[in-house]
Amino acid sequence: MLAEIITIGDEILIGQIVDTNSAWIAGELNNIGIRIKQISSVSDDRQHILTALDEASRRADIILITGGLGPTKDDITKKTIAQYFKVQLIENKEALNNVANIFARYNRPLLEVNRQQAMVPENCEVILNKNGTAPGMWFNVDGKIYISMPGVPHEMMYMMEDAVIPKLKSTLKLPVIIHKTILTVGEGESFLAERIADIEDSLPSNIKLAYLPKLGQVRLRLSGYGEDKAVLEKKVNEFADKIINRISSVVAAEEDIPIEKVILNFMGEKGLTLSVAESCTGGYISHLLTQHAGSSKVFIGGAVSYSNELKESVLGVKNETLLQYGAVSKETVTEMVEGALLNFKSDYAIAVTGIAGPDGGTPEKPVGTVWIAVASVNKKVINKFTFGNKRKQNIERAAISAFNMLNILLHENS
Amino acid sequence: MLAEIITIGDEILIGQIVDTNSAWIAGELNNIGIRIKQISSVSDDRQHILTALDEASRRADIILITGGLGPTKDDITKKTIAQYFKVQLIENKEALNNVANIFARYNRPLLEVNRQQAMVPENCEVILNKNGTAPGMWFNVDGKIYISMPGVPHEMMYMMEDAVIPKLKSTLKLPVIIHKTILTVGEGESFLAERIADIEDSLPSNIKLAYLPKLGQVRLRLSGYGEDKAVLEKKVNEFADKIINRISSVVAAEEDIPIEKVILNFMGEKGLTLSVAESCTGGYISHLLTQHAGSSKVFIGGAVSYSNELKESVLGVKNETLLQYGAVSKETVTEMVEGALLNFKSDYAIAVTGIAGPDGGTPEKPVGTVWIAVASVNKKVINKFTFGNKRKQNIERAAISAFNMLNILLHENS
Repeated sequence: MLAEIITIGDEILIGQIVDTNSAWIAGELNNIGIRIKQISSVSDDRQHILTALDEASRRADIILITGGLGPTKDDITKKTIAQYFKVQLIENKEALNNVANIFARYNRPLLEVNRQQAMVPENCEVILNKNGTAPGMWFNVDGKIYISMPGVPHEMMYMMEDAVIPKLKSTLKLPVIIHKTILTVGEGESFLAERIADIEDSLPSNIKLAYLPKLGQVRLRLSGYGEDKAVLEKKVNEFADKIINRISSVVAAEEDIPIEKVILNFMGEKGLTLSVAESCTGGYISHLLTQHAGSSKVFIGGAVSYSNELKESVLGVKNETLLQYGAVSKETVTEMVEGALLNFKSDYAIAVTGIAGPDGGTPEKPVGTVWIAVASVNKKVINKFTFGNKRKQNIERAAISAFNMLNILLHENS
Repeated sequence: MLAEIITIGDEILIGQIVDTNSAWIAGELNNIGIRIKQISSVSDDRQHILTALDEASRRADIILITGGLGPTKDDITKKTIAQYFKVQLIENKEALNNVANIFARYNRPLLEVNRQQAMVPENCEVILNKNGTAPGMWFNVDGKIYISMPGVPHEMMYMMEDAVIPKLKSTLKLPVIIHKTILTVGEGESFLAERIADIEDSLPSNIKLAYLPKLGQVRLRLSGYGEDKAVLEKKVNEFADKIINRISSVVAAEEDIPIEKVILNFMGEKGLTLSVAESCTGGYISHLLTQHAGSSKVFIGGAVSYSNELKESVLGVKNETLLQYGAVSKETVTEMVEGALLNFKSDYAIAVTGIAGPDGGTPEKPVGTVWIAVASVNKKVINKFTFGNKRKQNIERAAISAFNMLNILLHENS
């Protein structure tokens, strides 16, 4: 069963927003055995939308459309879909009630533009939008399914979870897709490929292997396609096990989770706690940890000690250390990690200090210089990194490197 | 001048990664007056890539391709492009030197798979990859330009900035596109549209207005297309000024910057400092601030007080307060913000405590309950919010709401 996603909106094409909807939708559909053939982002332009619908319907059985359903003039998706199906727009009672209720709840008058949100193509089935005023729409036309949803992520996500996925599952006979991902850390893509070349060569045609590199990590993903879930799962796991055995020293996780989640899981099982002292990562390490539900079991918090004053007052870094060696130094990062362990009373701590850029570099300490320390009461590892000159990337790389160091330390210590 | 972007990789189509490359490329091209007609994500499949190249070349003059250039077997972009142009792959000396140098630098042996990265279609001009082993490729065929780059973001970005953009600028006579964005806070899309309907109706055909809503904010974007930069800029600004005058009470910025950057700019000009006490936002507020270059001028740091112990030890929240009212309460957030002001010695502070979810809710304090305080020494504003049940969204909404509150307080106080 093939699907395509069409995202509509000039804001994507001028680079003002990143299309996060498509990846999320793709992931949800994959979970129920629907493969995405193509994702296309097109402009708020009638003819372009018509062409995209036409092309997608030639390739796929299910066409999901997001965006362009707002109340304003640049939102033309609804009219264009009606034109595509050669039908009229009619007022939908449920949708109108929904809009009216939302406005009543906020004590705001119902404007004519909002009433118009309840107008839908006459051949559609309305999907109620519990988080907004634009209704979703489901069409069955010539054996294909078309689904139109708002582009606002939380409105779309709720609709997918609440209505679209259940309806697709009950309507279609779906094939089985099994993905198995192995997270590796510290070995390059080509070295991994060389080490498992014979295993890759022996894969049957319905199982594919992909390499997904990202800042010091490579995820290996096996994807199996078939009919019988148990048989397929067994086969995919068999090959996954072969790969894991071959490269076990660099395997950080046998599932598709990020490195910080590997750490949270491991420390959670052992009842260990973690704190941080972040300078140049500026809260990013904390954010990566706390985005995961249940992180509070392990992560107790810490300091974003952006200024030198906070390094002293909150972490106890000595004024002389800062004066003599500077904020970006082995000495300072050492006192930061020791301060975190002592003041926050955690089993492990991470400390990072560096020059994220684009300014602030010197010949001895260029932009991208980062000191990272990870420590427990009985062991401390400190490394210096020299990343590039891009601020955002330096922050990300520092965070991932810190997690990698901590992950290794945790396994040495255990 | 129209361009299309084709991103190649199954990992996008199964939702394993979000395609951030396209938005970035689109933004860069827009800056130099190249419009993106369509963005298509296709699978690591020969026939599918050929079809995508064919479709894109019918619609656009410039086709940018990312992904599928790695050394492993699932990377088939290069061979497929060669097939598309009906040419052979030949070894490129510069590209081979580059690969050899990178491996020499890391003291690793040059494998056969890596040597193969220097093989390129014979009709291409190689774009050196200073951050990786896969060369970029530039093709001029039948009056169209095709550019193939790696999918690894920092490799692609460097190539674009260093080689592709300069070469496009020197090769093409580019038209002018002017975007002007107005950030509004606290008013819904439809109400804004109603208030400026007459201005929108009076726009000339070469200027478009788009509404970009996002969690309590709506950005209004005017886009003008033309030949003469000065004339176009004047016209776009004229309409922008009309809109700004009409809705001045909700305008947070007259440029395309996020709300936290509005705050950093304003406080930076006044020489004011900011600290934070983050509980449920877990470092996200700090991260949003510190992603901006120069944020250290305003943001001195703060505490990620995820545990109650840290709320007490770092922020000075009283144990009785936590026991009597709980961590998610008006009383606790008040002591958190006061503690931040006092302990971190900043002019302003933000404190947030809440239940991000998915667990931890109670009937009285359901998941999504968030208390936010913003304060200076002489004024304090405290609000309670009830967001939804999605963790990530609750964190984001809490951060944006905190910035909105601070932005209002800053303007009241000044």
